[in-house]
Amino acid sequence: MDEPMTTGPSSPDRVADEGGLTSADTWMRREIAEIPAVVARHLDEGAAEVSAAAGAIRVAAPRFAMIAARGTSDHAAVYGRYLLETHLGIPTGLAAPSVTTAYRRNLRWTGGLLVAVSQSGSSPDVVEVTSAARRAGGLTIAITNAPRSPLGRAAQVTIDCRAGVERSVAATKSYVAQLVVFLALVAVASPSEQLRRSLARLPGDLEAVLRRSDDWIADPAGPVGTIAATDRCLVVSRGYNLATALEIALKLKETAAIFAEPYSAADFLHGPVRLADPAVPLLALRPPGPIGRSLDAAVEVAARRGSPVWCVRLAGVASPRCLVLGVRQPDLVSPLLLVVPGQLLAESVARARGFDPDAPPGLVKATRTR
Amino acid sequence: MDEPMTTGPSSPDRVADEGGLTSADTWMRREIAEIPAVVARHLDEGAAEVSAAAGAIRVAAPRFAMIAARGTSDHAAVYGRYLLETHLGIPTGLAAPSVTTAYRRNLRWTGGLLVAVSQSGSSPDVVEVTSAARRAGGLTIAITNAPRSPLGRAAQVTIDCRAGVERSVAATKSYVAQLVVFLALVAVASPSEQLRRSLARLPGDLEAVLRRSDDWIADPAGPVGTIAATDRCLVVSRGYNLATALEIALKLKETAAIFAEPYSAADFLHGPVRLADPAVPLLALRPPGPIGRSLDAAVEVAARRGSPVWCVRLAGVASPRCLVLGVRQPDLVSPLLLVVPGQLLAESVARARGFDPDAPPGLVKATRTR
Repeated sequence: MDEPMTTGPSSPDRVADEGGLTSADTWMRREIAEIPAVVARHLDEGAAEVSAAAGAIRVAAPRFAMIAARGTSDHAAVYGRYLLETHLGIPTGLAAPSVTTAYRRNLRWTGGLLVAVSQSGSSPDVVEVTSAARRAGGLTIAITNAPRSPLGRAAQVTIDCRAGVERSVAATKSYVAQLVVFLALVAVASPSEQLRRSLARLPGDLEAVLRRSDDWIADPAGPVGTIAATDRCLVVSRGYNLATALEIALKLKETAAIFAEPYSAADFLHGPVRLADPAVPLLALRPPGPIGRSLDAAVEVAARRGSPVWCVRLAGVASPRCLVLGVRQPDLVSPLLLVVPGQLLAESVARARGFDPDAPPGLVKATRTR
Repeated sequence: MDEPMTTGPSSPDRVADEGGLTSADTWMRREIAEIPAVVARHLDEGAAEVSAAAGAIRVAAPRFAMIAARGTSDHAAVYGRYLLETHLGIPTGLAAPSVTTAYRRNLRWTGGLLVAVSQSGSSPDVVEVTSAARRAGGLTIAITNAPRSPLGRAAQVTIDCRAGVERSVAATKSYVAQLVVFLALVAVASPSEQLRRSLARLPGDLEAVLRRSDDWIADPAGPVGTIAATDRCLVVSRGYNLATALEIALKLKETAAIFAEPYSAADFLHGPVRLADPAVPLLALRPPGPIGRSLDAAVEVAARRGSPVWCVRLAGVASPRCLVLGVRQPDLVSPLLLVVPGQLLAESVARARGFDPDAPPGLVKATRTR
């Protein structure tokens, strides 16, 4: 869940009768379908803001970085921390807002970069951490879908996500927009011809991913039935795609009320693999490249314990159990692709369980925590 | 789970017959009972090493810190990051070992502090991150139960946890030993008379906590039956005790095979509160002080959704649903106390579900991940 300006869904053609909701009825499904256009728009229109942010980082030459966020935005932050570390060499952590908001302690921000991520830009704790870091001498950059929000005003540099209004409580297109901001930022701060070409291909690849994912979701031998029939599942990935596992698990929780536990393959083997059994499906988001093989090892342990394993990967041999997206992108870019079938899966599983994915009971679009 | 030198439990008097295991039979129960002595020993014998580490931090005056760990040790790291931020003012994050071990990128460690936490000191990824940080100019401190391990040798300064041999796969006394190292470190680096007195009282308080927790666990109206009868639960706290929620949830997972989801109260309201329902118990570890009230708000939302709520707190009015530990300690110190009833709860719930908490299927004591 994350949080722009609207207050809940109001799809005019929603069908709430005995037949339940169809995919065509939900804002969540429509907003997932907008992802290729959102990414293309950001790459087209966001370049100046991204360059300004990259320039500010170059001038400040930060020794370290922290990223502040909550909910879905916190998963974009997990992706961002890997990117800042692998591409800029800056040791980067995730901020604990309660140090500022609850314990009222001031950190020494000299030489530091604070990146704040919030869809609505109105999460009071994220705004407060940003203001505190700026006052204490840190460079502050906001990534938000609402550049004139309190967060947009609190930071020195603001990048607009340009995701458009998001009506479903479950954030989808706005999450991918946050990822593309981080990716575009390192593409400017640490340019490479390979990454430039990757970004140019990305909107088209996302269209292909949407088509193949829809087929997988509609396949009676696909994962929807199995996952809708359980109330527990495991979601595993690693590295850049730890963010993907975290985000798909949250989507399954908030829209479908499933205890979906996300893990990095390494942490999974430090205890939680114990949860794998025949009643607990495992969804593996397999990154391309060598890190994918370390995931295979973790998945194999779970499979030996009886977990039905479902897999999404960019290339390889497809089967009903394994969705192959059929696009060539590096590990670095793959989180923007691998998350899409997971979002669609959560939307379908929620409906199969009789829930409206746009309006989970007890949740609101903009969560205000301190 | 974490990892010293032994390879699995071998309790000589274990009873594996039709009556199931009793508490007296498990290493896990005995090792929890050793916690007061482990803490007293560290405060007594560990002072020189802690002072050396605090001195190294004073000299290096780090701009930022990162903590590297896996599994249970990663939860001690969560506590440590709050302490370094609130008491030393150093922005602190948790390291992502895969940046070093899988992506093979070098970070710029100049001006940085890397604290590595590993019970066995033999987790290859944690050792590798430590070596890389040291080579790149960071100050490196190891917190380990095995000072002559690869990790103990890789770091510039090593603090021995002095927890003694831990035979249960489920780490308990070694976890509290890691917490007391962090606490002793800030007590030297940022001394206060209040904290000195708190530490002096701590072993006696832990004895009292053990007695009251045992009564709670044995109470037929207590939480064991409810939690053993489900396969899902929520564990919620905040601030310093986010670590406690993470660690108790992991104990319930690895020993009792329960999908126990840990959350900070703030993140809980950003989506996962959706999981609360009458079939899903919630365990609240309520910190003392103002942050406890922000927890109450989150618990109330879950209770309104029907979750049976169990609570552990230091002071207040006791009830079968709420264990009051009856000790006076500040929020800062409370994670060492609040975790103990949770460890005992996991041990009892595991036995009630027919599992041997010392030897969860599929797990080993020293997990080696890269």
